[in-house]
Amino acid sequence: MLGGESALFTDLYQLNMMSAYREHGLGETAVFELFVRTLPPGRDFLVAAGLEQALTFLETLRFSPEDLRFLRERGDFGADFLDYLAQFRFTGHVDAMPEGTVFYASEPVLRVTAPLPEAQFVETRLINLIHFQTVIASKAARMVLAAPGKALVDFGLRRAHGAEAGVLAARASYIAGFAGTATVAAGAAFGIPLYGTMAHSFVQAHAGEVAAFENFARSRPRNLVLLIDTYDTEEAARRVVALAPRLAEEGIPISGVRIDSGDLGSHARRVRAILDEGGLRTTRIVASGGLDEEELLRLSRQGAPIDAYGIGTSLTTAVDAPALDCAYKLQEYAGTPRRKRSEGKATWPGRKQVWRRRDAVGRSCGDVVALEWESHPGEALLHPVMRDGRRLSDPADLAELRARAAAELARLPEPLRRLEPFTYPVEITMPLRELAARLDRETVGPGRSNRPAS
Amino acid sequence: MLGGESALFTDLYQLNMMSAYREHGLGETAVFELFVRTLPPGRDFLVAAGLEQALTFLETLRFSPEDLRFLRERGDFGADFLDYLAQFRFTGHVDAMPEGTVFYASEPVLRVTAPLPEAQFVETRLINLIHFQTVIASKAARMVLAAPGKALVDFGLRRAHGAEAGVLAARASYIAGFAGTATVAAGAAFGIPLYGTMAHSFVQAHAGEVAAFENFARSRPRNLVLLIDTYDTEEAARRVVALAPRLAEEGIPISGVRIDSGDLGSHARRVRAILDEGGLRTTRIVASGGLDEEELLRLSRQGAPIDAYGIGTSLTTAVDAPALDCAYKLQEYAGTPRRKRSEGKATWPGRKQVWRRRDAVGRSCGDVVALEWESHPGEALLHPVMRDGRRLSDPADLAELRARAAAELARLPEPLRRLEPFTYPVEITMPLRELAARLDRETVGPGRSNRPAS
Repeated sequence: MLGGESALFTDLYQLNMMSAYREHGLGETAVFELFVRTLPPGRDFLVAAGLEQALTFLETLRFSPEDLRFLRERGDFGADFLDYLAQFRFTGHVDAMPEGTVFYASEPVLRVTAPLPEAQFVETRLINLIHFQTVIASKAARMVLAAPGKALVDFGLRRAHGAEAGVLAARASYIAGFAGTATVAAGAAFGIPLYGTMAHSFVQAHAGEVAAFENFARSRPRNLVLLIDTYDTEEAARRVVALAPRLAEEGIPISGVRIDSGDLGSHARRVRAILDEGGLRTTRIVASGGLDEEELLRLSRQGAPIDAYGIGTSLTTAVDAPALDCAYKLQEYAGTPRRKRSEGKATWPGRKQVWRRRDAVGRSCGDVVALEWESHPGEALLHPVMRDGRRLSDPADLAELRARAAAELARLPEPLRRLEPFTYPVEITMPLRELAARLDRETVGPGRSNRPAS
Repeated sequence: MLGGESALFTDLYQLNMMSAYREHGLGETAVFELFVRTLPPGRDFLVAAGLEQALTFLETLRFSPEDLRFLRERGDFGADFLDYLAQFRFTGHVDAMPEGTVFYASEPVLRVTAPLPEAQFVETRLINLIHFQTVIASKAARMVLAAPGKALVDFGLRRAHGAEAGVLAARASYIAGFAGTATVAAGAAFGIPLYGTMAHSFVQAHAGEVAAFENFARSRPRNLVLLIDTYDTEEAARRVVALAPRLAEEGIPISGVRIDSGDLGSHARRVRAILDEGGLRTTRIVASGGLDEEELLRLSRQGAPIDAYGIGTSLTTAVDAPALDCAYKLQEYAGTPRRKRSEGKATWPGRKQVWRRRDAVGRSCGDVVALEWESHPGEALLHPVMRDGRRLSDPADLAELRARAAAELARLPEPLRRLEPFTYPVEITMPLRELAARLDRETVGPGRSNRPAS
């Protein structure tokens, strides 16, 4: 996983096609673009993520002896093709939006230019890597916008879809503005700040709540956060107040308390009052348990005295929109633009660029999807990131990606920042429309039209 | 991933608690149970899966030198604790429902009995493994029930949440009754049958559709399936009919055609007529593109002449219910039953067993959740699978798990088999209710009740 992984994380048809391309001499340059066809309900903008892992995949892609043995034993492919696979490397170019860039439907976020068999073969894992982190970064960005000034922490490894999903969800949410994660492997892999408190089982394993708090405090005195909802939240808060002087004598401050159930806003107000009255004004309140951006908005609006949130399932499974309608489509082969016209799935042909215009105060006010040779005002979003199979720069620094995402969120149109339904304007240029129309005429004759929705 | 993986696929708090348990001598036997609190909308039954990977995780769990170096460099844990981690092994017992077993809310599917630090530490990855495959097997089972007699194939690696999710989704759906997968790595890892056709880009890369079909047929003549919706589905079907005699001369039969867009039922009827009229009566129709169990039901009801389905996103992300409200909770420590009473999250205490009753024709007609010592009529669903950290039997054969799942689905109550809303009866026994009430009285005094919904 994540570099040096098996080349068999692919669909069988990629190998079938690759072998057929080879046999029939279809090895000229192909251009594929990765884009999202339509946005799902509840997502009016997306945040690109996963490019780093995608580039690592392309740079390190190799068929290992074990991969080749499996394919040989299946008996489906000839020795000549297996020899070719043994030497197979990705030698192409990649242009992409940097991670943290906001984007919309119909906009290519990544373009691969490579000999057809290479560009085809990498499809499955490229989508797999970019899709997932984009799903998570887009969900996380909504949470960040819903809870301004609050620290958000990813608690969601247990319900993420496997280990890789857990670690990459921590990365994608950190890029989008989360403060850190509970997932230790994400700290080890990416240096993401780690947070951790205690579970109910720790309290339950003790005869009483106070004994549990004392034992935990003495063992883990740094950034001490006590979980107070195992039995009765307010009663536990009073126990924390009573315990505080004893721990203070030992030099252990109670940094925070965590509430994980019930009406978090009401509990937080009552607990805040108990803590304040008990002199624990600097003890912070952490809330967790079934939170999503709607609940964060609700708590923000009511001014709940909560300082930090732990967010699990709704983040790491992006529970309301766990998949995007994304595609990786052939747009040009051997110098000629190509177009798929399947019903409801037609694509805009040719190599494209996305331009973003900004208003007087720097807010994004409209995008233009154009053919690559066109020039438009604003910022061009696709940049060269790989040439001849090699990265053009060192792996991106997460701090830089976080800064870009924060700037992007700051420049969103106001309705999007407020998570209100809003259709951001994305214009398809005339030259692009004309190219699509010309390809339609050439392939199926005049009078036949099957244009993509724009 | 999947055996020999990093021990750091865990939440930081597990390490915090483990070190505190150690320092305070909390090393007695703990019993944790894994269960689903409530079923999400659209899931009236679940199918257990993932046990095999969970047992491998427990058997092979080790802190590697790299894991330990990372923890040492963070400076959060003392040398004594790191030495303990270096020797750490899982030495406990596991009882579980076999994979492929149908289960419902409030029923433990897995029980861990081990020294508290071990039982605690394994929580995160255990849930991560069992939760995900159960999510997928439960979704896949609905599709299998919705399309009786049809071959279903997993096409969903690209939008699965990472590589591990893709491979394990192939496994879980195969257990639930899918015929196979397109994911090559799942064939290599588990021997799952692989299926693969061609993509639109293959057709687009050729000057014309017929040239694409011919080239593909000559390169991949075995189980030849041609994709016919790149431009015009019926026109392509006629091209297939025209091409068939030429390929037949070369000894290449056209096994199938695939339709991936538009109204699949209407296209299938028209394509079937074209194929039949053209003498291709044995050429099968494969459909794919945005399918879920609702669409499969609709196509089944209208008698669409479709022989096989490729199913992607809705399967591998379980798009309508990508997460279950599952928990792994301490039910007993040092011989004493324990109970969490957090609002809305209270648990049934003690070691439990699940009994399933059957009617005269063998259909399941009601479950009983009881304390372990109780005896009830019917079948006991939890079985010993690991003792002292070692599996009691060899890794399960997938064919056997498929047979169990098929038998389980056959014995579901009729409304569940028809995917109609239905609440299967799950009874909580009196001794279990009395134990919960007693624990409530002992901890917070009489008059206070916070029972779980039953």
